Amino acid sequence: MTLRIDLNADIGESFGAWRMGQDAAVLPQVSSVNIACGFHAGDPMTMHATVRAAVAQGVAIGAHPALPDLQGFGRREMRITPEEAYALVVYQTGALAGFAAAAGSRLAHVKPHGALYTMAARDAALADAIATAVRDVDRRLILVGLAGSELTRAAGRAGVPAASEVFADRRYEADGTLTPRSHPDAVIHDLDIAIVQVIALATRGEVAARTGERLRLAADTICLHGDRADAGEAARRIRQALLEAGVTVASL
Amino acid sequence: MTLRIDLNADIGESFGAWRMGQDAAVLPQVSSVNIACGFHAGDPMTMHATVRAAVAQGVAIGAHPALPDLQGFGRREMRITPEEAYALVVYQTGALAGFAAAAGSRLAHVKPHGALYTMAARDAALADAIATAVRDVDRRLILVGLAGSELTRAAGRAGVPAASEVFADRRYEADGTLTPRSHPDAVIHDLDIAIVQVIALATRGEVAARTGERLRLAADTICLHGDRADAGEAARRIRQALLEAGVTVASL
Amino acid sequence: MTLRIDLNADIGESFGAWRMGQDAAVLPQVSSVNIACGFHAGDPMTMHATVRAAVAQGVAIGAHPALPDLQGFGRREMRITPEEAYALVVYQTGALAGFAAAAGSRLAHVKPHGALYTMAARDAALADAIATAVRDVDRRLILVGLAGSELTRAAGRAGVPAASEVFADRRYEADGTLTPRSHPDAVIHDLDIAIVQVIALATRGEVAARTGERLRLAADTICLHGDRADAGEAARRIRQALLEAGVTVASL
Amino acid sequence: MTLRIDLNADIGESFGAWRMGQDAAVLPQVSSVNIACGFHAGDPMTMHATVRAAVAQGVAIGAHPALPDLQGFGRREMRITPEEAYALVVYQTGALAGFAAAAGSRLAHVKPHGALYTMAARDAALADAIATAVRDVDRRLILVGLAGSELTRAAGRAGVPAASEVFADRRYEADGTLTPRSHPDAVIHDLDIAIVQVIALATRGEVAARTGERLRLAADTICLHGDRADAGEAARRIRQALLEAGVTVASL
Repeated sequence: MTLRIDLNADIGESFGAWRMGQDAAVLPQVSSVNIACGFHAGDPMTMHATVRAAVAQGVAIGAHPALPDLQGFGRREMRITPEEAYALVVYQTGALAGFAAAAGSRLAHVKPHGALYTMAARDAALADAIATAVRDVDRRLILVGLAGSELTRAAGRAGVPAASEVFADRRYEADGTLTPRSHPDAVIHDLDIAIVQVIALATRGEVAARTGERLRLAADTICLHGDRADAGEAARRIRQALLEAGVTVASL
Repeated sequence: MTLRIDLNADIGESFGAWRMGQDAAVLPQVSSVNIACGFHAGDPMTMHATVRAAVAQGVAIGAHPALPDLQGFGRREMRITPEEAYALVVYQTGALAGFAAAAGSRLAHVKPHGALYTMAARDAALADAIATAVRDVDRRLILVGLAGSELTRAAGRAGVPAASEVFADRRYEADGTLTPRSHPDAVIHDLDIAIVQVIALATRGEVAARTGERLRLAADTICLHGDRADAGEAARRIRQALLEAGVTVASL
Repeated sequence: MTLRIDLNADIGESFGAWRMGQDAAVLPQVSSVNIACGFHAGDPMTMHATVRAAVAQGVAIGAHPALPDLQGFGRREMRITPEEAYALVVYQTGALAGFAAAAGSRLAHVKPHGALYTMAARDAALADAIATAVRDVDRRLILVGLAGSELTRAAGRAGVPAASEVFADRRYEADGTLTPRSHPDAVIHDLDIAIVQVIALATRGEVAARTGERLRLAADTICLHGDRADAGEAARRIRQALLEAGVTVASL
Repeated sequence: MTLRIDLNADIGESFGAWRMGQDAAVLPQVSSVNIACGFHAGDPMTMHATVRAAVAQGVAIGAHPALPDLQGFGRREMRITPEEAYALVVYQTGALAGFAAAAGSRLAHVKPHGALYTMAARDAALADAIATAVRDVDRRLILVGLAGSELTRAAGRAGVPAASEVFADRRYEADGTLTPRSHPDAVIHDLDIAIVQVIALATRGEVAARTGERLRLAADTICLHGDRADAGEAARRIRQALLEAGVTVASL
């Protein structure tokens, strides 16, 4: 039996004159990328350039739709209706699909960003709306959600292929949710510790919660954060550690 | 020989809590609609509802991409590069195509809105960028542009099927351009006069310029403005007059 | 003893090409207006025209700051920090104060809009941030908040003069909060019933809750909604009924 | 006779999660700062923090209003009316004045940003609208414009105190306009050459045009660009060179 996992990163998060992330360093190390679609980051010029770079690199491209909140980078929860969630996922996924088509490619997956991701992980009605939106835009799209969340369950209900996501450098609570970013230990800054977490997840489907409990988590894809100062180096070392542990890195 | 023309209207120009136009009254009278894509009007909820209504009515759906200018309704010229024009047309066309797919349909055409339309009519580099964007998103899309303009010529250069548009209630200058909206006679408010203009265009490909000259204009599609107070009634009467003149109204 | 109350209305809620409300009809009937500041409605041109009209009418002008959410008209709750609330109130109040100065006038009050108003009514930290922002921009400003809410209490803590607001056409819950807009009985559509509510509030400081309980509410100012179809007529009749009940209508 | 000049820099050009510029390094070297007001950069949180830092440093604070164009960083010309220019200057100046008041300070000047600056330099009607807006918000404000431009002339017509601005690291055309950014030689990247230009301007009111001609330019204030990679070092060395040339650096 071969162990196999997808490595994904959020890229294309610049906007206009503002640069963010280390996309050029991260792209060669991952198998999938989630590209910002204009609502939290990623103006049309940035989306165009990012899709072309990803296609040139041969990685799988996904949409990274968000709440309409440039000021808050899509990280502030908003009380939206399921109908609003549906519409904003269709809009942003369609917009990125346009760039994929223009680059002679197509989208492989959709992964909600930030607060939309977190809200969809716990709110079944929102999750259903998002899963339905993804299915309605293109039946071949895979929906990426937090492992063990309402979003991956909603994908099942909507008949959408789902992928369970785990995080290299985020802490988990004992109930399998991510430690909120407001908590001082939300992010694992020490790359060696992040690598231990990645290998445990990829080889045994296990992770240690912030408070010590051992959790079992399905892990189809591992998220690497592109906004770390050492994002490129982190991606390279995590990929290397996976290969050394006998895990094949490949898109979903 | 059968005379035949498309009747189109700009719809979906509400935004959030703000309503605009008389879409429900106009939809049954036209054969094509151009739907706002979020940059000058048309938030995702509005786009979703508008696409569904248009699909239910059986009219051809097109994207109506615009400059990023909600405050100015896309009517203020901006100095953008061809690369920017390309990216914003791909983005908006893709977004609307997402809603079309979600409604079990697909886009038939793209028609730039407002200042983008006007700029593309006279600027060959911008027109080439727009035509290329339309082709790159979907080779089957028809590009609608001002009759006799740089935009319809650019479609030819890019190998994109083009449709020449004329206006029911806008005045023309002697050189075939539209009388600018800043001019007091830019809009033909008298519906009877607009009907005379429509019939002359549809049956003889002719129009009288504001200063009296007779112009010859190719006319594949006639634009009806949905923001007239009498938009529904105007659409009904124009369609009626065309039928009585022996002209078949059908999408492109 | 003379009974006296302020009548206020939210105006200036158009945006760009989109019109909303019946400002011209409402203005002559009220003593104070709350003017949208660009985040939920009210582009700079609209703000300019609205401030001039209000100054010409001689009514007191207030800022109506909102969450940054044009698509949702500022009615969708967002999880913002107190620091963010502070900054967005300073920003929007300052912007409107610019137009007031340009019209030879000055702001009299600040009243948060929509979801910001509702959130501030129940969240003390947010309310403190808003009260501090109002005080820091101009010590003479009055903060208008829901009667009996955290916001009016926060004004007291910050040393800001406060005014307690009641609503002519909104229902109350037994705990003194407004019946949420999602509830079918949230809005009192029958003007006669609204007038009964207004008179009870203005003369006795009382209102009947949706479920029948009698509530006591301080009432310094009564909000009339400008987005009713009959907004102008409603304002005229409410003012008339107050005068007939011996209540003087005057700004705060 | 003492030579004296103001050194100014554009700061506060971050937005939300995106950082730009080296404000902390530049602030101690300049006597005035122009702070972004939300239309091209500078969300409310950024404005708040920037104003506080500038007040703490003791430099003069000015508003840096721009066209509404986050995607284009306010650098793309838009065809706006004088009425629109007036309203957007009042709005943005008022918003920043709110933060200045909240920090116990007040605005000293207004300097249009990017394309608004360039358009106002050559378009008298736009320049008049901007000068009138500045005067109407606060009669004590100084209007900073390109030396020898329509904007400084408009200030004279409106009775607004004006300051003529010159640039440390931008090239000039023979007619006194700035070499457009689209030109490869628009920016002087070599700091030593920029310093020569600064000293010539500050001590003799002279600059060499891109094509060699000697121009005479009034120079009340010198703009240092904060978006250079070496912005802090450049500011420090330019200030040092001025002091060595016997020029006092002080706000307007």
